[in-house]
Amino acid sequence: MPGLLGYRGPAERLLREAEASVGDVLEVQTGGEKVTGTLVPRYEHDDDRHIVIKLKSGYNVGISVERVSKVVRLAEGEEPKFVAPKRATGGGLPRVSVLGTGGTIASRVDYRTGAVSPATTAEELYSLFPELADVASITPEIVMSVYSENLEPVHWGELAKKVAEAVAGGQAGVLITMGTDTMGYAAAALSFALKGVPIPVFIVGSQRSSDRPSSDAFLNLIGAASMAAGAGFSGVYVVMHADSSDERLAVHRGTRVRKDHTSARDAFESVGVEPVAFWSREGIAVNAREAPPPRGRAEGFEARPRFDPRAALVKFYPSMPAGYLEAVLGSGVRGVVFEGTGLGHINAKSVEAVARFVAAGGVVCMTSQCIWGRVDMNVYDTGRDLLKAGVVPLEDMLPETALAKLMWALANSPSAEEARRLMAEDLAGETTPRTVQRR
Amino acid sequence: MPGLLGYRGPAERLLREAEASVGDVLEVQTGGEKVTGTLVPRYEHDDDRHIVIKLKSGYNVGISVERVSKVVRLAEGEEPKFVAPKRATGGGLPRVSVLGTGGTIASRVDYRTGAVSPATTAEELYSLFPELADVASITPEIVMSVYSENLEPVHWGELAKKVAEAVAGGQAGVLITMGTDTMGYAAAALSFALKGVPIPVFIVGSQRSSDRPSSDAFLNLIGAASMAAGAGFSGVYVVMHADSSDERLAVHRGTRVRKDHTSARDAFESVGVEPVAFWSREGIAVNAREAPPPRGRAEGFEARPRFDPRAALVKFYPSMPAGYLEAVLGSGVRGVVFEGTGLGHINAKSVEAVARFVAAGGVVCMTSQCIWGRVDMNVYDTGRDLLKAGVVPLEDMLPETALAKLMWALANSPSAEEARRLMAEDLAGETTPRTVQRR
Repeated sequence: MPGLLGYRGPAERLLREAEASVGDVLEVQTGGEKVTGTLVPRYEHDDDRHIVIKLKSGYNVGISVERVSKVVRLAEGEEPKFVAPKRATGGGLPRVSVLGTGGTIASRVDYRTGAVSPATTAEELYSLFPELADVASITPEIVMSVYSENLEPVHWGELAKKVAEAVAGGQAGVLITMGTDTMGYAAAALSFALKGVPIPVFIVGSQRSSDRPSSDAFLNLIGAASMAAGAGFSGVYVVMHADSSDERLAVHRGTRVRKDHTSARDAFESVGVEPVAFWSREGIAVNAREAPPPRGRAEGFEARPRFDPRAALVKFYPSMPAGYLEAVLGSGVRGVVFEGTGLGHINAKSVEAVARFVAAGGVVCMTSQCIWGRVDMNVYDTGRDLLKAGVVPLEDMLPETALAKLMWALANSPSAEEARRLMAEDLAGETTPRTVQRR
Repeated sequence: MPGLLGYRGPAERLLREAEASVGDVLEVQTGGEKVTGTLVPRYEHDDDRHIVIKLKSGYNVGISVERVSKVVRLAEGEEPKFVAPKRATGGGLPRVSVLGTGGTIASRVDYRTGAVSPATTAEELYSLFPELADVASITPEIVMSVYSENLEPVHWGELAKKVAEAVAGGQAGVLITMGTDTMGYAAAALSFALKGVPIPVFIVGSQRSSDRPSSDAFLNLIGAASMAAGAGFSGVYVVMHADSSDERLAVHRGTRVRKDHTSARDAFESVGVEPVAFWSREGIAVNAREAPPPRGRAEGFEARPRFDPRAALVKFYPSMPAGYLEAVLGSGVRGVVFEGTGLGHINAKSVEAVARFVAAGGVVCMTSQCIWGRVDMNVYDTGRDLLKAGVVPLEDMLPETALAKLMWALANSPSAEEARRLMAEDLAGETTPRTVQRR
């Protein structure tokens, strides 16, 4: 028996009184209602005041100990059965490929041992998320099992190839489940590698894992699967909560999205553009102003999945020594994306090192650490000196997008000159047009 | 004669027809009104459709060529006279020190040559900004003349010493004029060096220089001077436009402010807190929730103006090679602030280099590149490994603030241990309390 994995303090005391163990079926009585379901283990720190129950629907609910009047143990825990619910098997529905990379969004928890392992079959996914079977016929595949901070360009390339296979295999759409840390970088990378992809590709994750009471996993996964099956547009997007309610998802263009909060469910934001669509249980609302491309034909589409990791992202800071730059530039990189200050500046003493690197065939690009707004290197001396040195200004491209693009451009160009040309050209909506006069 | 410095295209044609030169007094007629003033030279690129006239009040106005029906040259240009307006001399008003560092906010333009030079006397400042003389008795001093991307910790230290002199000299408040690029870093640095300063210190700049028609320089300078003279609170703040109107300024706590737009007038934002006050011509509205400390007594205040520049800010990115870190850590730095992903992560292959650096006496701190939200390194393996390696988690401290603080802590600690302790302690409102449960 597993006992009370992760429960402490007041929550543990309540459960001990009921002689309950993780995995048991409980009835939790509060003021006016009874909640029946399986007791789920806890992983969070700093919370000893909630009991978490997995309902039959697959959703978890967290109940504050203050509200609990009584806990009744209805049945002993059993080995969890990963059997698809009878009402739904996904047959006849649009086919959707679900590519797993790690992350906890589509993991199953063994309530008897507390061990977490990814769902590897459609049946397991359906049993975790019963609603999935109503919206799509799922083909899951675990492509890798890597925390997102350890994902590398080579992984982005593998994912691009898998998406290309899904396109060739006639899938209606693709879901990529991923940890959220570097999701913005990955979404940008795939946008370049999969330029022109004829189906929707949704990168989806959860800010709170599916065994936390306030998890965003269910809605994100079901909304993204529903859109992969039925949305009328194509392209690479991040799909996450649009706000702090658990009702609405935003679909962010892969090249303009940023993780802007460490822990909130609506951590992801479109920068400089609006989300291309919103999803709720009522349906998909496509944003006409962002005009995502319609679904296309598989013929003629070709992925370009190669990335060269020999590029660095360098955030400039006051008093950055010229030696810092020399060390980075000398460590074998072929290109650098700067996050300069303001309109795109670094200190004067670094300009010479940059000029030498560019003259030796390096590719140096400029973005801004301001996040919002556009670089303009014609306004001040430092900017003009950097332009003279051959630095490529990247308009309002996000630094994270710029790094992914540079890794892609270096691998897909015969020369530094061509890589610089690709960096300056808008390929996948990574820059926005200068429609507004800048004053 | 200087001709038509900087004017091109349609604007130049209109001015040629009127035989006007920069510095001349013109009457510009539009549909319903006449604007009279001095023709100002242009520095902006990409704008050949505006004529800029300096009014007697000191304000510049930009007039679109489409609206101009006629330009009449009223008088030839004269040497600009830097004479304080008669109505106001600043006598009897609170004394305010204005420290110049090199931005364009308080520069005068010679309309005959186009040369820009900083205002060095009170008379020059009053002639540029006539309203200044109504709100304070100004003592200007040019402390340095440096673009803000070239400002270094040693400059922050010089400014801190000048502020301490102003305190000792009985000034009611201090204005520091500065380029906006690294203003956030400088504001944080001065917050630590001037902890407990008994008067208000306002860092102020302009996103558009005072010779652009849409300049924010006037309001920022006059509002900040007015508050330096009369506000009831003390501390170090950034004062810039609160929104895109030219009416309201926000007063941002020096340790929680970030330049979040490359060019907008309201580019500066308080992150995780609200501005401590707003200023408009109607008065100062202090935000009771942020409770800025009241003015204090000069006795007992002591600046700690030393900074050690041997600290680096490193933004983690996917596939950052362990060698990158080795190069940075090996280049003579004593401390590093990471901008990790999400809750505070870097890739697993960098952990060993970090552990070695800490073991050798280095100070390593963790912030998040998400900007909003708090690091929490207890949730995932990578975070726990970094904590074990001795990395100091910095809650919701901004990375830029963390770098300035680390440079200050290294210079003001006898040991790495003490520097780590200082980093983890809230000294100047650089972190916010964990009042909200994080789920």
